[in-house]
Amino acid sequence: MVEVNWAELIQKKRAARDALIPEPWRLPTSITSRVSPESTASAFDLLDEAALLTDKEREITEKYDVAGLTAKIASGELSSVEVATAFCKRAAIVHQLTNSLTEIFFDKALERARWLDEYFAKEGKTIGPFHGLPITLKDMLHVKGEYSTLGYVGHLRYPAADETAVIAEILQNAGAVLYCKTNVPQTLFVCESFNNVFGRTLNPYRLCLSPGGSSAGEAAQIGLRGSIIGIGSDIAGSVRVPALCTGLYGFKPTVNRLPWAGQAVLADKGWQGVQPTLGPMAHTPQDLTLFMRTVIQAEPWRRDATALAIPWHEPAKKDKLTIGVWSQDPDFPVFPPVARCIAAAAEKLRAAGHTVKTVQAPPTLRAMKIAMRWFAIDQVNLPLKLAADGGEEPIADLDAMDPRKFLDPDFAPSLAENIAISADIHDYREDWGKIWREAGIDVLLCPASRGSAVPHGEFGPLMYTIPWNLLDVCFPSHPCYLNLLLLLLDSSQEQYHDATIVDGAPTGFQLVGWRFQDEQTLMATEVIAEALKA
Amino acid sequence: MVEVNWAELIQKKRAARDALIPEPWRLPTSITSRVSPESTASAFDLLDEAALLTDKEREITEKYDVAGLTAKIASGELSSVEVATAFCKRAAIVHQLTNSLTEIFFDKALERARWLDEYFAKEGKTIGPFHGLPITLKDMLHVKGEYSTLGYVGHLRYPAADETAVIAEILQNAGAVLYCKTNVPQTLFVCESFNNVFGRTLNPYRLCLSPGGSSAGEAAQIGLRGSIIGIGSDIAGSVRVPALCTGLYGFKPTVNRLPWAGQAVLADKGWQGVQPTLGPMAHTPQDLTLFMRTVIQAEPWRRDATALAIPWHEPAKKDKLTIGVWSQDPDFPVFPPVARCIAAAAEKLRAAGHTVKTVQAPPTLRAMKIAMRWFAIDQVNLPLKLAADGGEEPIADLDAMDPRKFLDPDFAPSLAENIAISADIHDYREDWGKIWREAGIDVLLCPASRGSAVPHGEFGPLMYTIPWNLLDVCFPSHPCYLNLLLLLLDSSQEQYHDATIVDGAPTGFQLVGWRFQDEQTLMATEVIAEALKA
Repeated sequence: MVEVNWAELIQKKRAARDALIPEPWRLPTSITSRVSPESTASAFDLLDEAALLTDKEREITEKYDVAGLTAKIASGELSSVEVATAFCKRAAIVHQLTNSLTEIFFDKALERARWLDEYFAKEGKTIGPFHGLPITLKDMLHVKGEYSTLGYVGHLRYPAADETAVIAEILQNAGAVLYCKTNVPQTLFVCESFNNVFGRTLNPYRLCLSPGGSSAGEAAQIGLRGSIIGIGSDIAGSVRVPALCTGLYGFKPTVNRLPWAGQAVLADKGWQGVQPTLGPMAHTPQDLTLFMRTVIQAEPWRRDATALAIPWHEPAKKDKLTIGVWSQDPDFPVFPPVARCIAAAAEKLRAAGHTVKTVQAPPTLRAMKIAMRWFAIDQVNLPLKLAADGGEEPIADLDAMDPRKFLDPDFAPSLAENIAISADIHDYREDWGKIWREAGIDVLLCPASRGSAVPHGEFGPLMYTIPWNLLDVCFPSHPCYLNLLLLLLDSSQEQYHDATIVDGAPTGFQLVGWRFQDEQTLMATEVIAEALKA
Repeated sequence: MVEVNWAELIQKKRAARDALIPEPWRLPTSITSRVSPESTASAFDLLDEAALLTDKEREITEKYDVAGLTAKIASGELSSVEVATAFCKRAAIVHQLTNSLTEIFFDKALERARWLDEYFAKEGKTIGPFHGLPITLKDMLHVKGEYSTLGYVGHLRYPAADETAVIAEILQNAGAVLYCKTNVPQTLFVCESFNNVFGRTLNPYRLCLSPGGSSAGEAAQIGLRGSIIGIGSDIAGSVRVPALCTGLYGFKPTVNRLPWAGQAVLADKGWQGVQPTLGPMAHTPQDLTLFMRTVIQAEPWRRDATALAIPWHEPAKKDKLTIGVWSQDPDFPVFPPVARCIAAAAEKLRAAGHTVKTVQAPPTLRAMKIAMRWFAIDQVNLPLKLAADGGEEPIADLDAMDPRKFLDPDFAPSLAENIAISADIHDYREDWGKIWREAGIDVLLCPASRGSAVPHGEFGPLMYTIPWNLLDVCFPSHPCYLNLLLLLLDSSQEQYHDATIVDGAPTGFQLVGWRFQDEQTLMATEVIAEALKA
């Protein structure tokens, strides 16, 4: 057996990635020397100070949502090359400030943008609704010719992908421009951002804060507008938490509404535990809707058997919603900014004429314990096995999600245990179903976390996001839910240990809709966002 | 422990049921003496000969489909009482010819019909789209105040149900009139019709033939128009096979499109094997569509957490379909009538301008083996346990579905086996998904069985229906399918052992649509039925 020098491979990988950033887009040492996981600096400030972006580039990357940007391209006011260049450049800068990219393929993006411009010039029309739209991808999504290391040292020996993820193909067919992939934590099973290959991704609001995870790189990039929209994934909160921590809208759709095929593998075939899903992260709820509509209207089930063949249905806009509010689990009390944020939202929604009903939820710990038994039923534990393949120990951040903290001492994986878990999920779902029906609510407004962004490594267990993953299982006979995160800014963050450290970070909450009511929940989110803005 | 005299309880149960048939509706001994599982008589002929029905009652029960009948009621040309009376009377007669009813509540039906007529007279409108429509229910569906014995001797000690199945409630809210429940085989896990409480249900086309099962009583009643539409259930073919055997249209929707709650229990909580679903049986594909649309538009998920919150979406009618044809598995060749029926349908569809593509399927035995492992993973085997509770042995008919015939000798239920089954299903699904995509088909036309109706106890294993149940699982990441049965009459049945015995019985095939494409598949069925009628 040949001895592998991992440290050397890691260095080569990082150097190769960074070499793909053109010289003129590199930040001076005066800036980069202030970038570290300990720094209290804001990447927004450092980006301003660096002043590498032209006014036009700032306009392109800051002024629009997806509909606005694609409209400018479709009208000919902006070219695909201009847009791709602006976002590649800004993504490179954001990366240097937050360490958020894993793979860079700006050259392919610009080539693609040139082709789109030629098509537009020749045909006088766009090739689809996302013509020229740059989209970032979480590292797990394959792009032909690029790597999907997931930050695993052992994966550094893997060849480049020979396929592109089905969802990315669908977006490309709609006109999207792929230009980079984004960082994740080791195993993806924690709301942090560290792995041994790429290191730690930082929160643009304050570098010493975590951007959340596991879709950490997406959060940092979209948060600081190196990207306008991107794809994360969520098995326990991995879209919603990073959206919360960086002031974004994130959407965890019902499992299998989006196509899953074409990713780096993290579970053995036959895996029966909590089910993951991809989900978009963006700056407005309208962008989430547009993303979901565009992908589903492309009928992904005709390419990928994982996608459920449920057509997109445009719901009628409801001017007056019935909104359940679950303000906290008393055993895991939220911190003052979250409490204020939820109370303020409820008050504003009531004032806007919506019906707001207080809802009592089953204990969150009950969901956590079931979820952890369900994760622990998997004796292969492929995510940690892949780490061990490269000689890696589990990262310290994973401690918070250690199932043993929640399991009975006599827990043992078995068929009987698996059936007992199913039965417990069934009961938990029935309890939620009853609450939901009796309150007659359209959506549930609740915390997404005890606080919001916290210092690196301190996020802790996902008490407020995992219940919804647990309920969104594909067992039959149950209520299930989808989740998304709605942002409210709260300027004074007296959080759990050191209020000054988290001051100025965004705070938000979750909106939860009934399983398969993706369209209606997005509609409700738009209505609620509008009311809160007023 | 008190000794229970089962024979006496059974006699009492049957007598109590039959006493609910009014004297004037009872058939003379000259007719009933010719009713037995050995008789070659046709119940159609016997019904004619008995001549108990008035011309008006024959018109009401024979002339219409659901839309036609409810239109007559809605226009005031027929009263709900007239309609309920005609169907109660005919159901009583059909029962005496086929032994198809388990519970009779004609009195409640007529009371309800009177109330509906009063409402109509007072309000000048119907209470819903099914105002006055009589609907039969498979015995497992609870109706408050009635029994759900499922033909289990031990259930004779159970009290009457204290709830009504959610689907039945929804139908009642739409105006339906419930009047009786229908017979099933012991355990429901076989395409036959015998249990120790109620005995054997007979095929109206020829009494010595099986009506199929497990929705056997529905098939006999709807087949001979004691009912115009009814609800069966399907875990391995239990809606489709009886529809095939009695010349009906039956629809096995995607699992959990219809609400499941409010039934006699046949599986322990946490059951993870093949998933069952309810499904309508009727005389036209339009009736199936109307049934599905009415139930789903009532938003069953607001009453029952088992129902998926997927709104009904009306598909655009496709004038030209792409139809895959899988004519048979060479290891389980179909009998000449089925082969002729499928060939004739394909030819007619081609002539009508549809694109017909031959499709090669994976071996059916592969699906059967996986399905049987999946059933065998359930060590509780509640269906047989319930039989044993009443001192019953498994009925002989169950031999055909004995999992041991398909299991490896070293099969043992375990968590690892459960995961291996999931993985095998995944692969099987991927194989079908590839076939489906490559052929680009709207629906698949294939056998529902090697033959059609056969003598009692001779149906054998469900080689042609179980693959689709296996694929319609709620694991994520797979193609899944729904099924329905389309009828073609074939007058000369040279079947496997004695052609004369099965001569004149209906023959049919399955149309299979992609999972969750219920609406599109029903639309395609209507288009295909129209083309075949022409």
